[in-house]
Amino acid sequence: MESLHLVDGGAAELENLLLDLGRRARRASRVLALAPPEQKNRALTAAAEFLRTRTAELIGANAQDMARAKEKNLAPSMLDRLALDEKRIASMAQSLIDIAALPDPVGRVLDVFERPNGLRIERVATPLGVIGVIFESRPNVTADAGALCLKAGNGAVLRAGSESFHSSRLIHACLVEGLKAAGLPEDCIVLIPTRDRAAVGAMLAGLGGNIDVIVPRGGKSLVERVQSEARVPVFAHLEGIVHLYVDSDADLAKAEKILLNSKLRRTGICGATETLLVDRAGADRLLAPLVKTLLDAGCEVRGDAAALAVDSRVKPASAQDWSTEYLDAIISVKLVDGVQGAIDHIETFGSHHTDGIVTENQAKADKFQREVDSAIVIHNASTQFADGGEFGFGAEIGIATGRMHARGPVGVAQLTSFKYVVHGDGQTRA
Amino acid sequence: MESLHLVDGGAAELENLLLDLGRRARRASRVLALAPPEQKNRALTAAAEFLRTRTAELIGANAQDMARAKEKNLAPSMLDRLALDEKRIASMAQSLIDIAALPDPVGRVLDVFERPNGLRIERVATPLGVIGVIFESRPNVTADAGALCLKAGNGAVLRAGSESFHSSRLIHACLVEGLKAAGLPEDCIVLIPTRDRAAVGAMLAGLGGNIDVIVPRGGKSLVERVQSEARVPVFAHLEGIVHLYVDSDADLAKAEKILLNSKLRRTGICGATETLLVDRAGADRLLAPLVKTLLDAGCEVRGDAAALAVDSRVKPASAQDWSTEYLDAIISVKLVDGVQGAIDHIETFGSHHTDGIVTENQAKADKFQREVDSAIVIHNASTQFADGGEFGFGAEIGIATGRMHARGPVGVAQLTSFKYVVHGDGQTRA
Repeated sequence: MESLHLVDGGAAELENLLLDLGRRARRASRVLALAPPEQKNRALTAAAEFLRTRTAELIGANAQDMARAKEKNLAPSMLDRLALDEKRIASMAQSLIDIAALPDPVGRVLDVFERPNGLRIERVATPLGVIGVIFESRPNVTADAGALCLKAGNGAVLRAGSESFHSSRLIHACLVEGLKAAGLPEDCIVLIPTRDRAAVGAMLAGLGGNIDVIVPRGGKSLVERVQSEARVPVFAHLEGIVHLYVDSDADLAKAEKILLNSKLRRTGICGATETLLVDRAGADRLLAPLVKTLLDAGCEVRGDAAALAVDSRVKPASAQDWSTEYLDAIISVKLVDGVQGAIDHIETFGSHHTDGIVTENQAKADKFQREVDSAIVIHNASTQFADGGEFGFGAEIGIATGRMHARGPVGVAQLTSFKYVVHGDGQTRA
Repeated sequence: MESLHLVDGGAAELENLLLDLGRRARRASRVLALAPPEQKNRALTAAAEFLRTRTAELIGANAQDMARAKEKNLAPSMLDRLALDEKRIASMAQSLIDIAALPDPVGRVLDVFERPNGLRIERVATPLGVIGVIFESRPNVTADAGALCLKAGNGAVLRAGSESFHSSRLIHACLVEGLKAAGLPEDCIVLIPTRDRAAVGAMLAGLGGNIDVIVPRGGKSLVERVQSEARVPVFAHLEGIVHLYVDSDADLAKAEKILLNSKLRRTGICGATETLLVDRAGADRLLAPLVKTLLDAGCEVRGDAAALAVDSRVKPASAQDWSTEYLDAIISVKLVDGVQGAIDHIETFGSHHTDGIVTENQAKADKFQREVDSAIVIHNASTQFADGGEFGFGAEIGIATGRMHARGPVGVAQLTSFKYVVHGDGQTRA
């Protein structure tokens, strides 16, 4: 099976091949940047059609990946992510159709201003360039990430997890068929054709100046490596240590409903709440019912002294708990001194991803939303709304906690840059 | 005089001092991020007042720098940049007042959208964090850069050119007095207190995660070093190889006026035109008068065969000329095949900074402005409008040719990030 590595030569040969891929993606991206919306959408809908007609073949390729993964004793959760069936393939194809249906983000006039000398200056959205996406076992990311980059007029260099090698190759082939059907260069979406991990290093170094931004899609160790090694900008978040602060002026019923949804709707996503902070001034009224609600719903609660006192099922929290992203049905619970205490705790232990407040007091909500330095700050709603789809972005390639360029959900609009287009009538500068 | 280095210890001691400066700037930036506009403006106007009252002292400190610079045989142009007099100090103070008068960029609601479930999502401008500014001999950049960072709520770590050591220290002292007068932490604007060039390396590495973006202000070799070594994002342009394309459908009088201003108004700025491209189809009508206009105005012309043929004063252009930023009264001139030929030339030899077209044909202007991949693309106006002040940004810290976050003139608004503020009324996610 290893013969399917397209590169069997040494390190130098691999490096040359990768640099060549980068150059090809850059060249193709220049054509794509100027492609009209209809042409990009045609490529996406054609690719969806290829995915549908090649479903049986895809299931076969996936079976090869699954067999190898089982041999290597991959965890059941990883196997589940890797698996493709008819339903998953149909949904992957549908998501290409959905992305095609999004408004085109390129060419939007983001701003326009007129100068006293009559110059009219427009700020117009342009593609970013070439985006490198490094992802783990889910093969559908090949389609999703490639499609989002394409929609925003960007070249894409995709590096699929080695477990999904055969599945990703075939999905990529469908994307390339789509590009060809629409008359776009096939190098608009390039897939790294090797399992060699050296390819990741080459991408993080920017493939000879041919990658403008890297998006890692995967677990903490991947993101950590990318953030520490990348020589190009990265759109990512390392973790979502998400807090929900329930204030003394909260409506208890609303707080319970929001808390349950924030913690337990899905526990494995980055917007899931990991720590509940309760206002000391409202503890008598709020703490016991909130903690019991969680426990009764099957959530493990690790609490401070006050939380321990309300129910024998509560376990003691260690110092470690305040900075742990459980991604599981576990929550840490702590009393804090009002909204300022909540802000202090969040700024000390948080990850600047998403944090929420429940209160009927608008002044306190304002203070919290102004002073908590996170990408998303939510008042009286579930923290699980931290999602590009829920924001109306249509689809997201990830959520960023960096402060540069993109912050929060990264959808097609966030995958664009801009330029200034200046309209004159003979003006010269004094 | 070397005793004024505040650090006389070894490399480890310097490193610790620098990391400590970074931490202090980060801590101060958190306070500054939440400071109301009036408090920031008070700091700026107070600093302006200190600059005015300490003018004599400043001239004395500058005399020390000038004496040392003359000893080291600095070029006359460098000496001119370094020199301070009453007028320059007054203008430096005035620019702080002008920056104080700009609209506050923090807290602007950049976007707002309402979701079908009733969630209202605002995108609100926040400070970026801590900005590192590395500049060469002009001491006034200490005041300008510090003030622009402050206005946008950012901490600043300033590294002044070693030639301006004493001048910059005293200007920085005035800024700190201003911060203190306004009740802001003095570490909001930190000046690297050593001439040791190792400090630049430490800043480019991010001072232990305490610098979010670097802005180099200086010549090409500084920018080159910063762009190749920085481990944090950089707002900069390496050079401005600016083109003016005069199309066959151009109005000749307008073209002459725009060309003269684009090339000769000031030759040393990044928006000055370096190459004139003339449409072959209009060469008979346009080339000779344009070339003669330049020559008669005292500009050296280096041309291709066609340009050489129109006037004996024209010198032959070498291959090198098409990618040279003269920053002087020299221009290269070439015929190209229409707007497509101009675009091809610019994409091959340009620096993605600023490029212009002169034409009365709107379709050709549209094509040029859409397809030229530069930060600023100008139709029928001087390329010297590439400037934050001319764009109405009030003041700029530089012009960026990178595609991430800021592109084009970088004013106070471009020194901000944003966050999403979500307003709910009990919404949970399905």
